[in-house]
Amino acid sequence: MERTPGSAPRRYLDHNATSPLLPVVAALAADGGAAGGGFGNPSSTHQEGREAKRLLDEAREGVLGTLGARSEDFDLVFHSGATEGINAVTRGFAASRPGAAFAHSATDHSAALAQRGPLEARGHRVLPLPVNARGDLDPDRAAAAIRELAPRPVLLHWTWVNNETGVVFPLEDALAVKEATGATIHVDAVQSVGRIEGWRPLPDGVDACTWSGHKFGAFKGTGLTLVRKGLGLPPLVSGGGQQGGLRAGTENVLGAAGLAAALAHVAERHDPKAQREAKDLLVREIKAAAGARAAVAGEGAGRTSAQTVCLVLDGERSDIVSIAFDLAGMAVGTGSACLSGELRPSHVLKAMGFGDEAARSAVRLSFSPYVDRREMEGHLPPILGVLRRFVT
Amino acid sequence: MERTPGSAPRRYLDHNATSPLLPVVAALAADGGAAGGGFGNPSSTHQEGREAKRLLDEAREGVLGTLGARSEDFDLVFHSGATEGINAVTRGFAASRPGAAFAHSATDHSAALAQRGPLEARGHRVLPLPVNARGDLDPDRAAAAIRELAPRPVLLHWTWVNNETGVVFPLEDALAVKEATGATIHVDAVQSVGRIEGWRPLPDGVDACTWSGHKFGAFKGTGLTLVRKGLGLPPLVSGGGQQGGLRAGTENVLGAAGLAAALAHVAERHDPKAQREAKDLLVREIKAAAGARAAVAGEGAGRTSAQTVCLVLDGERSDIVSIAFDLAGMAVGTGSACLSGELRPSHVLKAMGFGDEAARSAVRLSFSPYVDRREMEGHLPPILGVLRRFVT
Repeated sequence: MERTPGSAPRRYLDHNATSPLLPVVAALAADGGAAGGGFGNPSSTHQEGREAKRLLDEAREGVLGTLGARSEDFDLVFHSGATEGINAVTRGFAASRPGAAFAHSATDHSAALAQRGPLEARGHRVLPLPVNARGDLDPDRAAAAIRELAPRPVLLHWTWVNNETGVVFPLEDALAVKEATGATIHVDAVQSVGRIEGWRPLPDGVDACTWSGHKFGAFKGTGLTLVRKGLGLPPLVSGGGQQGGLRAGTENVLGAAGLAAALAHVAERHDPKAQREAKDLLVREIKAAAGARAAVAGEGAGRTSAQTVCLVLDGERSDIVSIAFDLAGMAVGTGSACLSGELRPSHVLKAMGFGDEAARSAVRLSFSPYVDRREMEGHLPPILGVLRRFVT
Repeated sequence: MERTPGSAPRRYLDHNATSPLLPVVAALAADGGAAGGGFGNPSSTHQEGREAKRLLDEAREGVLGTLGARSEDFDLVFHSGATEGINAVTRGFAASRPGAAFAHSATDHSAALAQRGPLEARGHRVLPLPVNARGDLDPDRAAAAIRELAPRPVLLHWTWVNNETGVVFPLEDALAVKEATGATIHVDAVQSVGRIEGWRPLPDGVDACTWSGHKFGAFKGTGLTLVRKGLGLPPLVSGGGQQGGLRAGTENVLGAAGLAAALAHVAERHDPKAQREAKDLLVREIKAAAGARAAVAGEGAGRTSAQTVCLVLDGERSDIVSIAFDLAGMAVGTGSACLSGELRPSHVLKAMGFGDEAARSAVRLSFSPYVDRREMEGHLPPILGVLRRFVT
């Protein structure tokens, strides 16, 4: 929160769009760790290069350690963010498997949905999987639909935590679908870190899993994908053979160090119980204030994240509501995190059965990994103040 | 240069592999400019998002201004570095032009050469263009060879400044080939900034041009491509529609600000005359010390960069020589900048007619944009000290 003289503190409640850079990450750019001793090219053999390689290896080990993934099982690929990771896994799978099909949830992020067109243009089958009114995906129905694609190799894109609603698709369900169908599972874990209790360790059986650094306090333009060894995906970005040929380009050492530092920080400081308590308080207070005039999208879903509240204020325009929040000193999201500049019905809410008008009326409050009841008590008066202007 | 008590200063003479982060860039991560006020997602409509968008727009204008490219003529695409840029332009061209061919110099960077295999596998023609013993590419011969590919659309990959030898392929030659053949020109400008006098403004007629931030003091994992409007290249990374659909993924605001700041810094501080004087001094002293035992690759070429000296010490192994430099406190390059971990004959020197042994014997000294005669006088004694151990 920033404070200018005489003004109220600014409240940033849009962590699903992006998170502030953690001080522990920003410090890496300034101190000798990465900017000084580690500025070299990890491919260089001199002292500066070896130091950069050491930092990169240390980052790799740190990330694998925090995520609970073993280097015997997974290749870790550092890249520029989840959108690149999703493109790389999806296109790599399609390019290396003749007749491959792509299955995804109708509520996936636009980075996944954007793969559909190019895949279909190249003759690949695309299978959207429906969700129910609470945003849940039925694994048995998913398995049945995927089985009908046999004998095609199927990549199932599995959004662990929905960016708009916080609805969780449990990884156990993904693994059950894999068991039943033989599908290859790519987990979109972008909204998992510091948002749900079990964001680590990564369970056995997942074939690939992708994260974006800027969703948990690391640098924008950084991300990573874990790829099960032997999956055999050709690289999206080819060139100088860096990262074992999996992703070319001089490695972003500072970016990788930032990913490791941020993951370690969240792992140490995230208290899911406190976070859940804070969210429950907010939801209760919203209901008390708004009654039937506000719905919380995804309520009643099997599981939801402990920090996302997607408010549907049917009859209001989300851009107007979010401006009211903004003017009251609060940053909140509208629609999908990455396209919030544009007011169109949320495809997530539409997939859950909301009408066009309702799907244009959602604002999303999403909190940091460190929110607790006490912090939420501070947010409540201004949040409810804005809400009452629309619901009474 | 770093100094530990009682030791000589460390001399970093490998700027073609990577450059130290400029303090003006590192500071962006620490201060409120990008890490504080500008941490938002540029797609968000709230204050934090608008501030991030403002910083991104400012970076865009700064980059275009420094590079002398008009936004009416070019789309600016921020991405993760030149390897991504080369993949994006090359694959995008091939995917959107049936029967497209790819012409390149035999001395291009591995990021360009790595495009060959996948293109050929998809039925595209690939045309390597030879160079002479000085590393020069003959534009008339290139045009003649490209004309034989007619009526295929041809993408000509044009390495402006060679990373190993500093040999310059003048952009006027590229434009002459374009004039004679109708080829589309993609300039690899990675080794241009702060290395040659005319690194800006970008001349008219270039179709696309790609840079990497970490070669001139910006962050690793950042780069940009200018694409002539209307060229119609499909994106390599698709998703949320950011950057006008040209490159998806949340924009790396801090990275873009770093690119703009670093380019402005080099533009202001680079003195090509002083740099050339420093290089000439080094080459003279090397010849005086080594005589016929050392050749400078690319000498006698039409033009060379003012900061790269590629020494061929026939009969020596470049890894041994570079270790001797390293132990004497100097970081120098061997082989290609991005693969220097591996001792194999340099494909650049081989294309210039050097034998395998000679092509394994090169070490590269490459200096900052700010090197001058006085700085070089300080480097000379240790450089010549190491050299004499091998040539006498």
